[in-house]
Amino acid sequence: METITKLKPILRKFMDVRSRSEEICQPLEIEDYVVQPIVDVSPPKWHLGHTTWFFETFILVPNFPSYEVFDPQYNFVFNSYYETIGARVIRTDRGNLSRPSVSDVYRYRKYVDGKMAEFLNSHHMTHSIIPLIELGLNHEQQHQELLMTDIKYILGHNPLFPAYKKDRKKETKTSDEKRMLHFSEGIYEIGFEGPGFCFDNEMGKHKVYLNDFAISNHLVTNGEYLEFMEAGGYSDFRYWHADGWNWVKENSIKSPLYWHKIDGKWMHYTLGGLQEVDADEELCHINFYEASAYAAWKGMRLPTEHEWEAASSCFSWGKRWEWTNSSYLPYPGFKKEPGAVGEYNGKFMVNQMVLRGASVATPLGHSRFTYRNFFQPELKWQFTGIRLAK
Amino acid sequence: METITKLKPILRKFMDVRSRSEEICQPLEIEDYVVQPIVDVSPPKWHLGHTTWFFETFILVPNFPSYEVFDPQYNFVFNSYYETIGARVIRTDRGNLSRPSVSDVYRYRKYVDGKMAEFLNSHHMTHSIIPLIELGLNHEQQHQELLMTDIKYILGHNPLFPAYKKDRKKETKTSDEKRMLHFSEGIYEIGFEGPGFCFDNEMGKHKVYLNDFAISNHLVTNGEYLEFMEAGGYSDFRYWHADGWNWVKENSIKSPLYWHKIDGKWMHYTLGGLQEVDADEELCHINFYEASAYAAWKGMRLPTEHEWEAASSCFSWGKRWEWTNSSYLPYPGFKKEPGAVGEYNGKFMVNQMVLRGASVATPLGHSRFTYRNFFQPELKWQFTGIRLAK
Amino acid sequence: METITKLKPILRKFMDVRSRSEEICQPLEIEDYVVQPIVDVSPPKWHLGHTTWFFETFILVPNFPSYEVFDPQYNFVFNSYYETIGARVIRTDRGNLSRPSVSDVYRYRKYVDGKMAEFLNSHHMTHSIIPLIELGLNHEQQHQELLMTDIKYILGHNPLFPAYKKDRKKETKTSDEKRMLHFSEGIYEIGFEGPGFCFDNEMGKHKVYLNDFAISNHLVTNGEYLEFMEAGGYSDFRYWHADGWNWVKENSIKSPLYWHKIDGKWMHYTLGGLQEVDADEELCHINFYEASAYAAWKGMRLPTEHEWEAASSCFSWGKRWEWTNSSYLPYPGFKKEPGAVGEYNGKFMVNQMVLRGASVATPLGHSRFTYRNFFQPELKWQFTGIRLAK
Amino acid sequence: METITKLKPILRKFMDVRSRSEEICQPLEIEDYVVQPIVDVSPPKWHLGHTTWFFETFILVPNFPSYEVFDPQYNFVFNSYYETIGARVIRTDRGNLSRPSVSDVYRYRKYVDGKMAEFLNSHHMTHSIIPLIELGLNHEQQHQELLMTDIKYILGHNPLFPAYKKDRKKETKTSDEKRMLHFSEGIYEIGFEGPGFCFDNEMGKHKVYLNDFAISNHLVTNGEYLEFMEAGGYSDFRYWHADGWNWVKENSIKSPLYWHKIDGKWMHYTLGGLQEVDADEELCHINFYEASAYAAWKGMRLPTEHEWEAASSCFSWGKRWEWTNSSYLPYPGFKKEPGAVGEYNGKFMVNQMVLRGASVATPLGHSRFTYRNFFQPELKWQFTGIRLAK
Repeated sequence: METITKLKPILRKFMDVRSRSEEICQPLEIEDYVVQPIVDVSPPKWHLGHTTWFFETFILVPNFPSYEVFDPQYNFVFNSYYETIGARVIRTDRGNLSRPSVSDVYRYRKYVDGKMAEFLNSHHMTHSIIPLIELGLNHEQQHQELLMTDIKYILGHNPLFPAYKKDRKKETKTSDEKRMLHFSEGIYEIGFEGPGFCFDNEMGKHKVYLNDFAISNHLVTNGEYLEFMEAGGYSDFRYWHADGWNWVKENSIKSPLYWHKIDGKWMHYTLGGLQEVDADEELCHINFYEASAYAAWKGMRLPTEHEWEAASSCFSWGKRWEWTNSSYLPYPGFKKEPGAVGEYNGKFMVNQMVLRGASVATPLGHSRFTYRNFFQPELKWQFTGIRLAK
Repeated sequence: METITKLKPILRKFMDVRSRSEEICQPLEIEDYVVQPIVDVSPPKWHLGHTTWFFETFILVPNFPSYEVFDPQYNFVFNSYYETIGARVIRTDRGNLSRPSVSDVYRYRKYVDGKMAEFLNSHHMTHSIIPLIELGLNHEQQHQELLMTDIKYILGHNPLFPAYKKDRKKETKTSDEKRMLHFSEGIYEIGFEGPGFCFDNEMGKHKVYLNDFAISNHLVTNGEYLEFMEAGGYSDFRYWHADGWNWVKENSIKSPLYWHKIDGKWMHYTLGGLQEVDADEELCHINFYEASAYAAWKGMRLPTEHEWEAASSCFSWGKRWEWTNSSYLPYPGFKKEPGAVGEYNGKFMVNQMVLRGASVATPLGHSRFTYRNFFQPELKWQFTGIRLAK
Repeated sequence: METITKLKPILRKFMDVRSRSEEICQPLEIEDYVVQPIVDVSPPKWHLGHTTWFFETFILVPNFPSYEVFDPQYNFVFNSYYETIGARVIRTDRGNLSRPSVSDVYRYRKYVDGKMAEFLNSHHMTHSIIPLIELGLNHEQQHQELLMTDIKYILGHNPLFPAYKKDRKKETKTSDEKRMLHFSEGIYEIGFEGPGFCFDNEMGKHKVYLNDFAISNHLVTNGEYLEFMEAGGYSDFRYWHADGWNWVKENSIKSPLYWHKIDGKWMHYTLGGLQEVDADEELCHINFYEASAYAAWKGMRLPTEHEWEAASSCFSWGKRWEWTNSSYLPYPGFKKEPGAVGEYNGKFMVNQMVLRGASVATPLGHSRFTYRNFFQPELKWQFTGIRLAK
Repeated sequence: METITKLKPILRKFMDVRSRSEEICQPLEIEDYVVQPIVDVSPPKWHLGHTTWFFETFILVPNFPSYEVFDPQYNFVFNSYYETIGARVIRTDRGNLSRPSVSDVYRYRKYVDGKMAEFLNSHHMTHSIIPLIELGLNHEQQHQELLMTDIKYILGHNPLFPAYKKDRKKETKTSDEKRMLHFSEGIYEIGFEGPGFCFDNEMGKHKVYLNDFAISNHLVTNGEYLEFMEAGGYSDFRYWHADGWNWVKENSIKSPLYWHKIDGKWMHYTLGGLQEVDADEELCHINFYEASAYAAWKGMRLPTEHEWEAASSCFSWGKRWEWTNSSYLPYPGFKKEPGAVGEYNGKFMVNQMVLRGASVATPLGHSRFTYRNFFQPELKWQFTGIRLAK
């Protein structure tokens, strides 16, 4: 084998991304890899297996003639939403599968990584395959963020509140003065324009017409949100969408996720364990309904994703996924790719809201100002926040 | 009393609209007024009471000093989504209420109509109240369309398939040649610009930038949709949104609403009873998922609501509510009115898709090319149809 | 037609029972006949149709050659649990059926009653058919009691609390001194022994061995139950079965059905409207879990059905169906009849508890000390009460 | 410390039972300890913790002054249905708890076992405590059986069908000739009569009167049940209770649990992996509804628990828990113990059916002919079987 410095850049990137997923899981007990407390949270071992299955299924099987599948049953276990590839395990069942074991999954990763290294150094590797490998790596980076959010959910819903890492350092706070940034009406250009990787849903740089708008240079802080809570925000229907108000009442919601009032003090579960809520820190773990209600209470609104993108070079972002008031819909000229890869994004373009920016859980190098994240409006286990507009 | 010709136009309009609601119910048996087969379908007597409650609560009580409420309990029974006005009957419970009886509801209508006539002829009536009366009348017209769709659902889900009107005349079919209309990219103006009535969600005429697009001058017919069905459209996930595909599988959907395959022939329930499906007639009663899947199967797409509005003067519309690929979101500068009336539209601006046009069930004079109708993507009991774009 | 005095006794009894069902419904509005607020409560018009369908299906169709079915669709609508006879309307859907109308149902009754009169006077009528007619009449009497309980539920869950009969006279209260009746251990005989009608589940008079027991000569009163409520009975798990405790917590139960605390006073809906709870009256509308918890709180227990039957000649009964601590199971030698009639009782012999006695809603002549009524332990809309034992 | 031979018998028994629980889990992967595929199946690590918590909470804390609780949070995690002892984890959540880890649980066991050994050898140990220790050991033996059934469920519902033990030896088959044993009517005595341990629900030896009955000396075999299946037993409502028939239809049941038809052959998951169904082996994993339906199809019935107990000395039993047609109800004179231990049995005496005998999964020394096992009629993951009566 050649020395590491002589490896092709794609292989080095491949190894970097792949090892990062395992680093994220390094503080876990084996038991933490297995559970699925709610349908939206997948067991960590499933993430590790599923991202591996992607390379096996879409790169090695079709392109590397000598490749032998690690275990033919794994397609059934680690497939997610790719209807094209075969019957999948019903998503709610992931948390019931004690096998394959965690060590089996790591052996699977090692096997596939070894074969990928062989493949990338072989004459079977061609330029035309690079985009699919890039997609696989970006797919794995998405799952790295999900690993972080899912691990937080699993540990943060355990009555023992175990820390992920005891010595986790605090987030730095923004020190800029808080103000509104003003933008004038006119035509703006939106969407990704190469070079480099982007998802299909960002493609098609296109013109949009925006009206005058203003957008905050800051995210809403815990302290600001506490004012809303203390002003009775969770018990006044006027600030809420009808669906949001139903959600509040049916679930008796009174605070962001992970917040607990203990002996009169607001605490929240963090990856470092249970800590007192810091009023100056950026608010986290609220859903679209809460973000909208807060904005309405302030007499403002959430930005659209177009406004956010047009303004994004004028403020700092990347700590919280920022809810926008835009539904997740196709850009003009959007086309699904043929085959299983085409299931990636288009089929989710209904019933979801767009989030922009990135979060403290987003892998380095996996954020762009054109990136379109999306979730259902009731979900709040991602590292989500609020930026106001008017 | 003065003769009818001397009545102010607003009173004449009031009486026209009010009596139209009762005409719609004229063919019903008393029992038909009472049932609520699904949560989205309200009992006809509830529609008759609720629209009356609107005038009592928002016009008479605050503006007509001598007015005495017909029955103080009715606020509890006939309020719908107006959280401001007091506790409401849980919506799913409407179909459990045998009282107030149908004749009570008609007495309620007569009482309120009489008082409204008195009021409109009194010195308490001022110009500033007209917009709210207009809103009440447009509100009642919306419920007239719901009366038609809910009556169809109630009778069409009865195993005896009773006709609403035996002698209902057939819809006329469009005879224009079918073709795509082409529009060039550029800035278009969208939204209502007076004079006359519009809902708050249409307001704020504003510019949008559209890319080149083409839109059909025809609605999709039953025959065209049958081709999709026969080509296996309902069993190929590739054409469907993920949520749509789940909906198809969970509900074993195989056809539009009201369609039944009987002795090898496709029949459908119409207001005139069970009839054979006419291949040339415009398709009706499909939801957003079905509309999208059909468009995907044709290699096309649904128009956005902006495209539809920009092109609407170039084709004939008004037979089916046409699903667009636009989510129901606020126009730039949208503001909720203060108070209960402000709950009208804004709080529904999430999780719904926009429909444009109007339908055979829409009251005369209650359609505009700027009108924004909206429903959840899975609903199909409205008179909905498909117009393709690309 | 012959005069009424010359009619055979069976015809007179038939007419008596049949007309009694219609008398019960006489105070109803048409709308009250239609609704089904919960799955256990059937619309009154369904009871009227279903009991008629029984005679049409089991007497006239097989035995009266000239009989023509009133409407072949009615089998589908009015069949209940008789799987043998064909597909049935799903029970939860009964409340969605506005047709057949109430007047259609009365025409159906009139038609079938007329044909039954013809049949009973014809030579087709034989002695072997009498038991089935008796079963049909007892079946209708059971539905008369259900009519009363279902009407009470429909009116008692309407926010207007309409009275069934304004001038309903109060129940008389028992004036006997309250005491425990003691019985010695030994063999007792249980079960029906002719002559006369009984249901299949009462048959097979047989010996049981009972231990010493004591049973109260009184039913528990509202006042006694209020002591339990005020002592925190609904919030102390120790008195409850595990399933009962879950039921209390999930439904936030705090009182018997129909009870409402209004301005600090306990009121309850009665067939005469909303009235103050009378402490001396026999408690009504509690389920098995509540009956058991009350008994446990008193340091006593519910009687078994055997104890109840053995002791029943020594106390007065008939105001409340009395929960026993016996599950509904077959007597020794129980045999299902062949055919649809055999579905009558045996198939319910699991997951239900036996009630003994009768209630104020039981038709005259439809009670026996061997009668075995049965319901699921969570149900409380019947006129149920508590008799203690130890 | 003294040598093992000098330990008191109660300590030896304690150690035997406690180590047996750990032996049962010895073949498991760590991941297998964690999952909870359905609400009735608990994660193995929960069983190990819960049985330990019993000794900590009921023996050590109240009786051993120097004892320090291992972790005060564990009461919250390992309490099951003992409402007296404090808030419990909602049962459905057990499978979401990755912590305490498996090794924590084993450390907990080791700590408590050590303290129990100290305690049993100390002067704090008195004769009056023995019954509670006996209860704790019998409780742990019950959980040993649940460990077996839950492990089977976890592995048997994994798509990889992992074996629990590859070399598991086959059950021996009964070779006696099959025949009915006849018993005459009269008074029989039922219930436990010392010496030795029994549960509270067996106590109170008492007389019952039985009619003539006959009971099979054999359990129903797979081959016999296959005849029922092939004769359409699962699609003929006549053999089923109404609740059973609903269960069959709603769940599309077509065979016992763990059975799969693969390439035209009936296979079933066993603790040794997937194996062909052996026609001569005793049927296993059917619920009460299936047992009753089979009996009805044979023109017979299930025995009552009294009949079973009266006849039990005349046949061999112990391979399958045998469904009886008796509901789980208190014996005459049944009394709940005061305090948390009193919650053991009485509160479950509704909505469950009695099973008699024991199974291949029952620990040695944990069966008696008076033992009353009980489960809801729809459950089938225990090692259950059928013995016919008439």
